Amino acid sequence: MKHVLNEIRHNPLLWLLAFVPVVLAVEKLKPEAHTLLFVLSVCAIVPLAALLSHATESVAAKTGDAVGGLLNATLGNLTELVIALTALRAGEYMLVKASIAGAIVTNTLFMLGASFLLGGLKHHVQEYNRISARMQAGLLVLATVALSIPSAVSRADAVGGAAFSQKLSVGLAVLLIAAYGLSMLFSLKTHRELFVAAESGEAGEAPWPVGVAMAALAGVTVLVALVSEVFVESVQKAAEVFGMSPAFVGFIVVALVGGAAEMASAFSGARKNRLDLSVGIALGSASQIALFVAPLLVLASYVIGPTPMGLQFWPGAVVMILIATFSVAFVTNSGRSAWFVGVLLLMVYLVFAMTLYLLPPQGN
Amino acid sequence: MKHVLNEIRHNPLLWLLAFVPVVLAVEKLKPEAHTLLFVLSVCAIVPLAALLSHATESVAAKTGDAVGGLLNATLGNLTELVIALTALRAGEYMLVKASIAGAIVTNTLFMLGASFLLGGLKHHVQEYNRISARMQAGLLVLATVALSIPSAVSRADAVGGAAFSQKLSVGLAVLLIAAYGLSMLFSLKTHRELFVAAESGEAGEAPWPVGVAMAALAGVTVLVALVSEVFVESVQKAAEVFGMSPAFVGFIVVALVGGAAEMASAFSGARKNRLDLSVGIALGSASQIALFVAPLLVLASYVIGPTPMGLQFWPGAVVMILIATFSVAFVTNSGRSAWFVGVLLLMVYLVFAMTLYLLPPQGN
Amino acid sequence: MKHVLNEIRHNPLLWLLAFVPVVLAVEKLKPEAHTLLFVLSVCAIVPLAALLSHATESVAAKTGDAVGGLLNATLGNLTELVIALTALRAGEYMLVKASIAGAIVTNTLFMLGASFLLGGLKHHVQEYNRISARMQAGLLVLATVALSIPSAVSRADAVGGAAFSQKLSVGLAVLLIAAYGLSMLFSLKTHRELFVAAESGEAGEAPWPVGVAMAALAGVTVLVALVSEVFVESVQKAAEVFGMSPAFVGFIVVALVGGAAEMASAFSGARKNRLDLSVGIALGSASQIALFVAPLLVLASYVIGPTPMGLQFWPGAVVMILIATFSVAFVTNSGRSAWFVGVLLLMVYLVFAMTLYLLPPQGN
Repeated sequence: MKHVLNEIRHNPLLWLLAFVPVVLAVEKLKPEAHTLLFVLSVCAIVPLAALLSHATESVAAKTGDAVGGLLNATLGNLTELVIALTALRAGEYMLVKASIAGAIVTNTLFMLGASFLLGGLKHHVQEYNRISARMQAGLLVLATVALSIPSAVSRADAVGGAAFSQKLSVGLAVLLIAAYGLSMLFSLKTHRELFVAAESGEAGEAPWPVGVAMAALAGVTVLVALVSEVFVESVQKAAEVFGMSPAFVGFIVVALVGGAAEMASAFSGARKNRLDLSVGIALGSASQIALFVAPLLVLASYVIGPTPMGLQFWPGAVVMILIATFSVAFVTNSGRSAWFVGVLLLMVYLVFAMTLYLLPPQGN
Repeated sequence: MKHVLNEIRHNPLLWLLAFVPVVLAVEKLKPEAHTLLFVLSVCAIVPLAALLSHATESVAAKTGDAVGGLLNATLGNLTELVIALTALRAGEYMLVKASIAGAIVTNTLFMLGASFLLGGLKHHVQEYNRISARMQAGLLVLATVALSIPSAVSRADAVGGAAFSQKLSVGLAVLLIAAYGLSMLFSLKTHRELFVAAESGEAGEAPWPVGVAMAALAGVTVLVALVSEVFVESVQKAAEVFGMSPAFVGFIVVALVGGAAEMASAFSGARKNRLDLSVGIALGSASQIALFVAPLLVLASYVIGPTPMGLQFWPGAVVMILIATFSVAFVTNSGRSAWFVGVLLLMVYLVFAMTLYLLPPQGN
Repeated sequence: MKHVLNEIRHNPLLWLLAFVPVVLAVEKLKPEAHTLLFVLSVCAIVPLAALLSHATESVAAKTGDAVGGLLNATLGNLTELVIALTALRAGEYMLVKASIAGAIVTNTLFMLGASFLLGGLKHHVQEYNRISARMQAGLLVLATVALSIPSAVSRADAVGGAAFSQKLSVGLAVLLIAAYGLSMLFSLKTHRELFVAAESGEAGEAPWPVGVAMAALAGVTVLVALVSEVFVESVQKAAEVFGMSPAFVGFIVVALVGGAAEMASAFSGARKNRLDLSVGIALGSASQIALFVAPLLVLASYVIGPTPMGLQFWPGAVVMILIATFSVAFVTNSGRSAWFVGVLLLMVYLVFAMTLYLLPPQGN
């Protein structure tokens, strides 16, 4: 407990934890204050995500490399997963899918673009390990291709058979999770030396004792789940008040909130001229969502959702995912970066954000 | 003849040749046993393809480099060509187009993916000639772009004028064949040193005398044509029995059957850590189909088909072709491979295969 | 004046300047001779573009590097800009958009392809600066992605709200121009060493005195504007006579005419084995159109156009732009070229040109 309090004292971001009890209290007292609840829940999720991330790393650091790497990789997007599961249970499939697509796009374009920009403002030209970046970009490209092609194919041929969609989605989910398992075998066991730079980068902060970390992991996950419920319930109404389309909220707001902790690590790595770390977090997190979180949600929808959810995305989302991952693969291919590369990635992100923001609300 | 028999004795794959007389006999005796005929014709085509491949190489080895390379390049996909011509004469345009698209996708994703996987299980990281791989991937990408863009453009703009489609298809076919001629001039004459590794790789097996090889070439081609006829006639009915969509049969089954011999060479090269050979066969074969086989079939449809066949593919096929070639170009760009890269290529292939398998049958 | 006359005497291309008075005279005397006016105006624009290009370089060479580079970059596509502004004022939005898309496709595929081909016929394998080429290709890819994604997204989702389109287009235009400003800061100020090869390449010809150059710049711009007016008025009718679709005229004819001067520089660089120059001109010019000319025209439409013009392109154009820039990014990635690479780029261009030529005329 002392460790957690110590951490909180030294990390201003964690002072936002004060919002956790506030949001839960307000939810009890004024459940109809949607806009307030939305703002409060965003403020509460950000520090919880940071704590979750630190707890995961502490457990990972203690349990030995193989199990630790596994844990780190599996729980890395826990915040996103909990938010999405909450939305899934509420039957908000549009929000779930937007948050999956948004997390991939935000991790690649925004997280990487801002890392390049922030790093480039301090360092003239930054170099990073091309071989490792290429390997990771390869995983990411093929993962998102596997994820998005079925939408493209079924959309393009306008075959809307619900039975077809469902069978295909389940089959793909199983395939993607199998590929995810193999990717962990690859990056943690058989070819771990290729991914070393990115892993070792996290060692900066002192880890917690494993008991504290495990308890924190459990407790914080519960808190995230509670706050996520408030967030998911309030987000639609709040979006209307702020004049935001549901697509914008899912794509941009949820992705930025859920990824806040990882972004902090990626940006700090870039400032310290350790771009391998930033590239590893951005690409690794994005491929984890495509290969693990998305298919898990499809399978989970059979258990906890009101109806089965498929893997089909709306065509604009597929286009954005493919453009984002191909752009990033292209950019990271050179192993060099300068500030303007970051500007261009951010510009593409801004284009997407602007398009989604202006998009008139509609069915789907 | 002795050489051919000797070859047959030492190559277990060729024992399947016994199925050739069987399939022709069954076709005479029980022409309505479609499922049986389908299975038998698949078993018969595989060893014929292997013989054809060996005969072509033997002729090529004897006639000097320029003519030999020409022959090798032109006849490399003879099995696919004969099957497609048979389907063309029968007016099965859906099958023809699916087999063209399928051959490109199968050669790139499956042949290359399995080569990377098989090679990677034996060797930790495999390196191959980046410059040659890039040049070949470049040819392939631009070849498939040239092939598939017209579909994209005309589809996207929904201009379905039949006259427009026909004129465009013929013009494109002439253009693609001209490009194919230039590509041979490039790879066999002006810049042959770039393609050396892939060419020399075939030298492992003892070639036949040229007379034997020429006779085998002629004889086996006739046999392939005869068996193809049975195959094309039985495939539709058999597909129904096995619950396979016509798209799946054309895309996956025909491509795997027609490419069996080349796959054997590519896989054996990968196991021997000669990935240049595997990459050369996979990319070379795919671009040959795009630049030579496909346009030749369009032109041939005016002579032997019931109606002219265009170059338009259905949108899903175009998406698959582009994704497959861009993925392969991206992957081969690094000149390095490990087993998981193969897994990812195979996974994309499986995603395509699963989508096609589940696709409800429809018009087109 | 002596300098300009001297230049004209030694450059046969400039003898075409004789067509400038001819076209203006014919326009007064026989305003209904559309075909003649079209041919004459094409003949007149080509030498004017060459003069404009030389005048810009001369001013740039005198005013010091930063301002000069700025001028050179801003005025590099002045011919295209004046033609497009004339078409904009006439309300020919189809022509404006086709000429934007066409300039990007022509600069990348035709200008670069012909440079590779012409250079490759003289030199076996040509090498150029990969790092600089990659950086420029990166700018281009992200620029065209930013330009074309909104069309893809709004098209795909079939949200045709005019208000949405207009707001989005204006927002994007501002964003793109901001990115263009930053790209100049990047390439002329903070990271100019990366772009040096391409800049220094122009130094071959003796610059004019700055006064002469400024006067020429002003005078020639007026002439281009006058001739463009004739061109835009006559092009539609002439296209009908020659059996060309409006899409073909905008995409191919206007782009080739407007880029004639730059092409001459790029081809001559390739022949002298200075491919860095050719790649720099082709990619730089294309990204300038995407980042600066296109958004400027959108904003200008609010001032001089009959109605506001959006950034939406028809789907086929978006596909062509993306294919063209991704192909070029892929090809330039290796830093090596041979003649057949040029053939393939030209082939893709020919495929596009043929498709557009055969396209039946329609609305839009």
